[in-house]
Amino acid sequence: MPDEFSQRAAELIEAGRFLYQHGWVPATSGNFSARLSNGNLAITVSGRHKGRLTPDDIMLVDSAGKPLDDKRPSAEIQLHVQIYRRYEHIHAVLHPHSVNATLLSRLHSHCLVLQDYELLKAFAGIGSHECQVTVPVFANDQDISRLAAEVEKYMNDSHEPIFGYLIAGHGFYTWGRDVEETLRHIEAFEFLFECEMRLHGVISP
Amino acid sequence: MPDEFSQRAAELIEAGRFLYQHGWVPATSGNFSARLSNGNLAITVSGRHKGRLTPDDIMLVDSAGKPLDDKRPSAEIQLHVQIYRRYEHIHAVLHPHSVNATLLSRLHSHCLVLQDYELLKAFAGIGSHECQVTVPVFANDQDISRLAAEVEKYMNDSHEPIFGYLIAGHGFYTWGRDVEETLRHIEAFEFLFECEMRLHGVISP
Amino acid sequence: MPDEFSQRAAELIEAGRFLYQHGWVPATSGNFSARLSNGNLAITVSGRHKGRLTPDDIMLVDSAGKPLDDKRPSAEIQLHVQIYRRYEHIHAVLHPHSVNATLLSRLHSHCLVLQDYELLKAFAGIGSHECQVTVPVFANDQDISRLAAEVEKYMNDSHEPIFGYLIAGHGFYTWGRDVEETLRHIEAFEFLFECEMRLHGVISP
Amino acid sequence: MPDEFSQRAAELIEAGRFLYQHGWVPATSGNFSARLSNGNLAITVSGRHKGRLTPDDIMLVDSAGKPLDDKRPSAEIQLHVQIYRRYEHIHAVLHPHSVNATLLSRLHSHCLVLQDYELLKAFAGIGSHECQVTVPVFANDQDISRLAAEVEKYMNDSHEPIFGYLIAGHGFYTWGRDVEETLRHIEAFEFLFECEMRLHGVISP
Repeated sequence: MPDEFSQRAAELIEAGRFLYQHGWVPATSGNFSARLSNGNLAITVSGRHKGRLTPDDIMLVDSAGKPLDDKRPSAEIQLHVQIYRRYEHIHAVLHPHSVNATLLSRLHSHCLVLQDYELLKAFAGIGSHECQVTVPVFANDQDISRLAAEVEKYMNDSHEPIFGYLIAGHGFYTWGRDVEETLRHIEAFEFLFECEMRLHGVISP
Repeated sequence: MPDEFSQRAAELIEAGRFLYQHGWVPATSGNFSARLSNGNLAITVSGRHKGRLTPDDIMLVDSAGKPLDDKRPSAEIQLHVQIYRRYEHIHAVLHPHSVNATLLSRLHSHCLVLQDYELLKAFAGIGSHECQVTVPVFANDQDISRLAAEVEKYMNDSHEPIFGYLIAGHGFYTWGRDVEETLRHIEAFEFLFECEMRLHGVISP
Repeated sequence: MPDEFSQRAAELIEAGRFLYQHGWVPATSGNFSARLSNGNLAITVSGRHKGRLTPDDIMLVDSAGKPLDDKRPSAEIQLHVQIYRRYEHIHAVLHPHSVNATLLSRLHSHCLVLQDYELLKAFAGIGSHECQVTVPVFANDQDISRLAAEVEKYMNDSHEPIFGYLIAGHGFYTWGRDVEETLRHIEAFEFLFECEMRLHGVISP
Repeated sequence: MPDEFSQRAAELIEAGRFLYQHGWVPATSGNFSARLSNGNLAITVSGRHKGRLTPDDIMLVDSAGKPLDDKRPSAEIQLHVQIYRRYEHIHAVLHPHSVNATLLSRLHSHCLVLQDYELLKAFAGIGSHECQVTVPVFANDQDISRLAAEVEKYMNDSHEPIFGYLIAGHGFYTWGRDVEETLRHIEAFEFLFECEMRLHGVISP
């Protein structure tokens, strides 16, 4: 019977294959993590191709993002740590890098508002299409700690739940109770991003 | 030799895999049913992922939609029941949730009219491209009985045959003599929806 | 060793699978044929699903299109016969039914002119991008003999070679020395149709 | 243990399959090469289908492009030779022929400038999205030696590193340390080309 780390690693490997087949993590972009019951994280090693991950491409870090083996984690690890610190019930954070997310982040400078879509019900806790889901857009920044602080500040100031955020020119982050729920969120976001991009300039929101 | 319920369930499972591969039932959206010869329905259980259905994800309900086992059917079961009650020769109802159907339902507030397409001949009983096929658009509603009554009222008032309808922001419903014919209708609708979306704003109908 | 009919039938079956995977023969649309050395034709039976053809879905007709077994050929058989009669070196005719072909046939009422594309060199006999390839557009017609006469008349009047034609709202026809060359022509046409559609309204030709 | 030529040939065959599945080398378009440690090149034979290459479709030429066996190399071999002569560390040159590259080369007459994309970091040596990557566009020319001289002249005159170039109506060239790095460059370029095409006319750069 595989241990908890190996199970989560296998889920992240399979998630990478799925996301790559959809074109959502091209050219080594993207990074993925899952939280173990002791608070440590399984996370993708820096620079690996996400469509062809092997167990060697997943490493162990502590809850602050400090490596517990001799590999180097994804540069954006502090964005994962920020989410886990804030939301106790979250056990997976996935960062895909799709064309639609990239395009929307260049067309909306502050946020994207999704409404009147039945598929909003795919987000944990949403029960009707008659609601608004805000997706904030953050400026891209190679200083990831500073970017993580921006995200934290936004979440402190906002009073509505969010299910993911965009980084300008850089894909999006989403999270969930486990890898499976997080993948459902990605499928929903990608569908809605595609709708929004194709409606852009056609109807006003 | 499998019984009738198991045969229909196998067809719905395979339909789910097919529709999911095309991106038409993302993130647990969509629902499917088939009518048995005794009038009972095989229908997808609520909230399951339509691309990875197993026999356990298909349940039995009576002709009014009342569960005959201890599972919970798709919330939209009354839309299936309305079609079966109205059309004796119909034995399958499929509800995919595609990007093109969603977009068209936001661009057309009452109906979409399809004409001059050879592929209209894919709909049962149509023999020439020189005809009009109307696809009504209904407002989305979390009260499914009320929505089913809207559909019934439209069908009572209209004098032309329809092969499917859109629900705003929520995909479309189509039906057929069996699962195979219904899948042919879906392929035809998706092709025509793609054409209409890409012609939108380019030529006037 | 399979006979000539069986070999050609196997090629048409494989072509159907290939074209269907690309979405170019949805919902039983399209039809395919190959000419045998004795002048008879192997052609798809009417109404079959082109992505799931079996040997039973390919039948034998004579050079005028008269069935030599008890099946019913594709309704558009006279369009195949017209091409074989006219061009002695042609041994395959394929009719896919793609979104891009359908859209272009509604945007261009007489013809589409392709130029300045390196990929024009994929057409048999073209050696440079510095040329024009005209793709005529014919009005759709359920009277196939009349439509075949229109095509014949166009070819009699025109002095430039053509490699395929569009039927309004109804896909396109192309042909070649054998099935393999005809598939290369389809790949080239589909690529060029996609380019033309996406440039439509963006640059003037 | 396979020799160096066979290893490189296997990588080019696999690259062809990958690129063809994405629709980036339709209808026998495209050509690929890899440099061996003795300076000779493994390169695709002229006119072969790039999605179904076999070892017989890869041939050996010397560093000037002269055939070392009795096959005929891709007509564009001098474009490969120019890159290898100029950049000692480059060991693979791939030329895909995608729709997006073709479209952009018709919309931009001199060059395309990519900026503010995180994915620019996929190019060897780029460490931040805060940079500009220029992709020059050369006029198409059936005289490949003249075209290679144009490329050489551009590279002599320009002071910034480039990672690939477009030929009008004719796809693009990119290169890398090995086949794997070059494929990463293609994935990044295709993603960025798709973004640029879909933003064209929507925002000004």
